[in-house]
Amino acid sequence: MDFTSEHGLDDGVIEREFTLGEIPGTLWTPGSTPAPLILMAHNNGLPKGAARLVARARQCAAHGYAVATIDAAGCGDRPRSAADEHVRAELRRAMQAGEPVDEIFESLVGPLVEQAVPDWQTTLDALLGLPEIGGPVGYSGWTALGVRLTVVEPRIAAAGFFAGGYVPRAQREEAGQVTIPLLFLLQWDDEGNPRQRALDLFDAFGTKEKTLHANLGGHTGTPWFEVEDGNRFFDRHLK
Amino acid sequence: MDFTSEHGLDDGVIEREFTLGEIPGTLWTPGSTPAPLILMAHNNGLPKGAARLVARARQCAAHGYAVATIDAAGCGDRPRSAADEHVRAELRRAMQAGEPVDEIFESLVGPLVEQAVPDWQTTLDALLGLPEIGGPVGYSGWTALGVRLTVVEPRIAAAGFFAGGYVPRAQREEAGQVTIPLLFLLQWDDEGNPRQRALDLFDAFGTKEKTLHANLGGHTGTPWFEVEDGNRFFDRHLK
Repeated sequence: MDFTSEHGLDDGVIEREFTLGEIPGTLWTPGSTPAPLILMAHNNGLPKGAARLVARARQCAAHGYAVATIDAAGCGDRPRSAADEHVRAELRRAMQAGEPVDEIFESLVGPLVEQAVPDWQTTLDALLGLPEIGGPVGYSGWTALGVRLTVVEPRIAAAGFFAGGYVPRAQREEAGQVTIPLLFLLQWDDEGNPRQRALDLFDAFGTKEKTLHANLGGHTGTPWFEVEDGNRFFDRHLK
Repeated sequence: MDFTSEHGLDDGVIEREFTLGEIPGTLWTPGSTPAPLILMAHNNGLPKGAARLVARARQCAAHGYAVATIDAAGCGDRPRSAADEHVRAELRRAMQAGEPVDEIFESLVGPLVEQAVPDWQTTLDALLGLPEIGGPVGYSGWTALGVRLTVVEPRIAAAGFFAGGYVPRAQREEAGQVTIPLLFLLQWDDEGNPRQRALDLFDAFGTKEKTLHANLGGHTGTPWFEVEDGNRFFDRHLK
């Protein structure tokens, strides 16, 4: 893990860019370490530098967590395969034409999740070797990846999922295997995310400790207090 | 308003029983006053002294709110009319027989809500005359009464509803007129409260600021952290 830049923020938070082989990432660490770790994964279409992700990460670090994000293979600013570009073009075309898009999403997001998992596990291995990171690990963000990662990765102890993107069939089917405490965040009027499908997914999770938070509004309308609620959720399970 | 008993609790909270004409009530005030007021209404079948209500009220007062509850007409320990007793007996019989109970609930809860509203308004008038109470007013608890009360009572600035009881047709129909900030709390597997009906009600509220919290488990399984989340909701709107 090579750190390529570092700068200090308010509240004693340090923000560092790193590379780990081909994986680019950002690590925020709080003023007091060793700190428990949150893996914060954005939906695949957005880079790790997206403003809302960075704002959430900084707030979470100021609250006392180490927070890490990466661009996994094919995600964010990473190079896309010709096949991926083709599927994305087909997706845009179908959306503009008002055609069904489930099968196209399936062929796009399914492989992205599969490819992202080893990159996140490699990153987790490296992060847990740092002296400033200790204690249990949480996951926050992209639901589809989160389902897969929490099913295969016993080091993750609690997860906050944002129900705002397509969840492949494989992850809907394995949702019953998610048995860690869960906070599931839904935007009630999310344009691209059918509400009933999100409620069905919440119902399907296997954990006995699951909480749904839903707020009025569209995909990007999540109120800021949900960031604080997320921190409090992790405080209950990681501290 | 006649105070009939008083005793001090931890955190400087004072708990007082009162009567206001025929209305018996309890008022909790925090160590620092004047404090904003929360009207805390239990579902009609339970008295104001029910252990879970009292625990919630004490915690909320320790957090800095004045909290009041009453037994409204026909509710809690107040005398019941012969007609009410008849409907309740019919309800028990129908439930044991596994028959539909919606119409029986309608004939029981509809009038209870109508009768409870003036008692709560009388109580609110008296409470706002006390020097230890100041600032905006919140409502917490029984959904059916809460809908009616927030529609007719402009002094209530924010409300937390517990989706755990029958909501009469009249209140389902006027839910669109609820325009204050709302926190709606649902138990995902509430035995007596069909989930879809609760979700439909959340959808129907007219306010632009509404949040749904749902937790796994039955009617009495609400996790304690929801009390804290409720306090934080009121902090955002009443302080």
